[in-house]
Amino acid sequence: MKLLKNTWYAAAWSRDVGTGFSTRELLGEPILLYRKHDGAPVAMIDRCPHRFAPLSMGKRIGDGVECGYHGLQFDCSGACSSNPHGDGRIPAGARVRSFPCEDRHGLVWIWAGETSRADANLIPDFSHLVSPALKTVGDQMTQKAHYELVVDNLMDLSHVNYLHAPYQQVDAFLSAKHDVVQHDGALESRRTVPATRAPQSFRPFLDDPDAPVDYWLNIRWQAPGCCVLETGVVAAGQPREQGLVRIGSHVVTPIGPASTQYLYASSRNYRLDDPEADDETARWQQMGFHEQDKPMIEGVQTRMGERDLLSMRPILLATDAAAIRARRLLAAMIDAEAREDEAASVATV
Amino acid sequence: MKLLKNTWYAAAWSRDVGTGFSTRELLGEPILLYRKHDGAPVAMIDRCPHRFAPLSMGKRIGDGVECGYHGLQFDCSGACSSNPHGDGRIPAGARVRSFPCEDRHGLVWIWAGETSRADANLIPDFSHLVSPALKTVGDQMTQKAHYELVVDNLMDLSHVNYLHAPYQQVDAFLSAKHDVVQHDGALESRRTVPATRAPQSFRPFLDDPDAPVDYWLNIRWQAPGCCVLETGVVAAGQPREQGLVRIGSHVVTPIGPASTQYLYASSRNYRLDDPEADDETARWQQMGFHEQDKPMIEGVQTRMGERDLLSMRPILLATDAAAIRARRLLAAMIDAEAREDEAASVATV
Amino acid sequence: MKLLKNTWYAAAWSRDVGTGFSTRELLGEPILLYRKHDGAPVAMIDRCPHRFAPLSMGKRIGDGVECGYHGLQFDCSGACSSNPHGDGRIPAGARVRSFPCEDRHGLVWIWAGETSRADANLIPDFSHLVSPALKTVGDQMTQKAHYELVVDNLMDLSHVNYLHAPYQQVDAFLSAKHDVVQHDGALESRRTVPATRAPQSFRPFLDDPDAPVDYWLNIRWQAPGCCVLETGVVAAGQPREQGLVRIGSHVVTPIGPASTQYLYASSRNYRLDDPEADDETARWQQMGFHEQDKPMIEGVQTRMGERDLLSMRPILLATDAAAIRARRLLAAMIDAEAREDEAASVATV
Repeated sequence: MKLLKNTWYAAAWSRDVGTGFSTRELLGEPILLYRKHDGAPVAMIDRCPHRFAPLSMGKRIGDGVECGYHGLQFDCSGACSSNPHGDGRIPAGARVRSFPCEDRHGLVWIWAGETSRADANLIPDFSHLVSPALKTVGDQMTQKAHYELVVDNLMDLSHVNYLHAPYQQVDAFLSAKHDVVQHDGALESRRTVPATRAPQSFRPFLDDPDAPVDYWLNIRWQAPGCCVLETGVVAAGQPREQGLVRIGSHVVTPIGPASTQYLYASSRNYRLDDPEADDETARWQQMGFHEQDKPMIEGVQTRMGERDLLSMRPILLATDAAAIRARRLLAAMIDAEAREDEAASVATV
Repeated sequence: MKLLKNTWYAAAWSRDVGTGFSTRELLGEPILLYRKHDGAPVAMIDRCPHRFAPLSMGKRIGDGVECGYHGLQFDCSGACSSNPHGDGRIPAGARVRSFPCEDRHGLVWIWAGETSRADANLIPDFSHLVSPALKTVGDQMTQKAHYELVVDNLMDLSHVNYLHAPYQQVDAFLSAKHDVVQHDGALESRRTVPATRAPQSFRPFLDDPDAPVDYWLNIRWQAPGCCVLETGVVAAGQPREQGLVRIGSHVVTPIGPASTQYLYASSRNYRLDDPEADDETARWQQMGFHEQDKPMIEGVQTRMGERDLLSMRPILLATDAAAIRARRLLAAMIDAEAREDEAASVATV
Repeated sequence: MKLLKNTWYAAAWSRDVGTGFSTRELLGEPILLYRKHDGAPVAMIDRCPHRFAPLSMGKRIGDGVECGYHGLQFDCSGACSSNPHGDGRIPAGARVRSFPCEDRHGLVWIWAGETSRADANLIPDFSHLVSPALKTVGDQMTQKAHYELVVDNLMDLSHVNYLHAPYQQVDAFLSAKHDVVQHDGALESRRTVPATRAPQSFRPFLDDPDAPVDYWLNIRWQAPGCCVLETGVVAAGQPREQGLVRIGSHVVTPIGPASTQYLYASSRNYRLDDPEADDETARWQQMGFHEQDKPMIEGVQTRMGERDLLSMRPILLATDAAAIRARRLLAAMIDAEAREDEAASVATV
């Protein structure tokens, strides 16, 4: 499984990382997560370099970890800080790989590449998740599928009219104006449906559910697996600022070749203090993501087996433009990294 | 898993294929089965060529299928009939592989090879299954074993005296006259036990259960996995036409390398309207096939692991003649097909 | 999985082998175990050489086995003794591999190498298990881990202070005098803690639990997986003969690459007829071996996946001396066997 390395991956919702140990399989590795006493998150490989015991079976000593098998201690950078055996000397190489780790916008991010290149400014913008002008409802799941299949699902929103009918269906959607725009390695797919019937998911929150609305969906992908979906409705012909808007956050992190951690949330600019609207969102996420998307995406994975999507030569439709471009961009980024690594290893010879 | 291609495989009992979708893994592929409005069965790969979604998660549109993910439609031949996206043009190659499919003698058959060579006259004769002169009771199971192990079990009936004792045991059976006859690629193994005690399974239906009978078992195999077993008893010295006869149908279709669909039935020429005789048959099938054959055949598979039987150099006994010949005939047919494919590909260069 | 062949492996506790068939997966093979009428244990591959049926699905005929599929019979040496088919001739090569098998010291041992080299005098000495001067309590479990990981656990007793604290912890343990001695292919790791507080596991059995004791732990490993652990306490300065002593038996047999049969027992020289002391031992085995060692060892295996420990370049500490030497001794013995086999095959050309 070739992954993009020099990038930030979402490891968890911030609220799910506490002072106690938790372990998640991410990026093909078992990753130990916890918070230091000052609240800063820590991520390291959950495996002692001595006898490969899971560090999560040990205990916290200060801001570090004591292995539960033979008592080696590591500080939160992963360096061995105490060896209780023999003369107590710390062996060379006694180090656990740790990851640069940041808590931002309600998510804990880990940098999978070279530590020296970790730059918190490169963390994708999910500030809407913590904006006081919005109300956010979200959760997570594991998809038993390759993470690019989950991204494909998001980047081709034409599936909404089939898989999510009738709740999200908009009849004019398939013939709507559709642009795919690329900038700075990110990709945006924009659809606008003017003067249409509002989709069911917005109707309860409109003064006149039957009045025509301008409806838009913009989804923005940033490598490798961060998608932000803006959907909105506004009275036909009025400026979007006056409309009802939902910002969907869809953050996928590979677990393994056919397993993906999927964090999702919806942030709305209306009925901020309305528990009924929260429940409505949670019900939709349960139905749409868990009961409709998940079986379909996992069904696709089952039908693909261990094969790669493009090697199976899928038929390409107009609506595939964004998803296929995202795949190609990502593949090019991974290739570029591999070439860079190769050049670096030649340079050091 | 190399399979014979230009042949008919039983996909299901006819009664189990309806107008709704069902999917079975057969021949290493997920196969979607349903009936058209005129009742004709349809079989196609359960995988959309666009994004590889299971078509069975979509819905029927007329006699065709609409994919539940992005709405492509396919007719019952597998050709794409509608693309709701962009300009609606049907992409070249938008086609699902479908199988020539026939409903015959209570079984739905699919042709696994070239469509142009599918000939319904080649479907093995199972007309006894629907004969009004016989009463048939049957069902199905999955055997977690290679399909040739299930055929081996049938083609070496000497196991009856051990695995199925005491119900089917006949003391003189092992020393009975035994012929193996080959004709037209089919193989027949015939055993006759003259003037013996009737086996337990016939005794309740004989006027004098203790009178000596001539007892016979003929099993006929046709590649790759169709077996017809005729067993009968008649008063010693009388013509077989006057006897009690059961025609066993044993139809196996490979699912994968160690998994087999096994359809079985028993058709008798006596007590046609006797529910008690039906129950007796069903009880025997449960005991003999599910509780005795299945654990043994699956035990053999477990002991073989991923190895091939002949590569393990089994000891060969006199009773193995029919099973080993069937294996060799089948291997030769598969090899001949491979050579034919190769010649064809050379010819087209 | 390369295993040492010319050696005795413990197949089972003697009490668990009776006149009926039982099958255990050991050394990568299914092994049929039972006792002859004279009580001698028999071990053979649980697979008929005819059609590879599990012999355990058959039945006993005298001291031999009748296959339940087609009725071949084998005597307890594995030679075919009866073929009920055809002319009844016994085919050449109709033989099940059997293992030299001995019942000694409460364990059934099998010899995995050449039969001609099986020498019961080479069975490791576990006579303490049946000594009338000791009381033994033991049981068994399966560890989902490579057998060398289980041996590692035993050969590096420094884990006691972490994994088994507080029950077995002795503060001065880590700084105790520690020798590793090799003799005749066996390895002994000896630790002595003079004038210390008795470990909790001995305290209930001491007249004055708070009086200082000399405490010792000696563990002896014999290839491939037999460990004997002697732990004792005696009033400080007194001869060990006057002390409380427990002899731990830890006998591991590979099942497969990440699965191990682990037989364990504790034999004590005090309170021989005290059921409360028996219960105390069983409770400790449950807690220490099942609830502490097992999850840790299996956690290590999980973190290693299919990799070999040494190929992962573990950090080596002073306490690893015995375990690493045991691994290297065993690897050298396996290599020597391979070279010997090669030389033999050249010699016979």
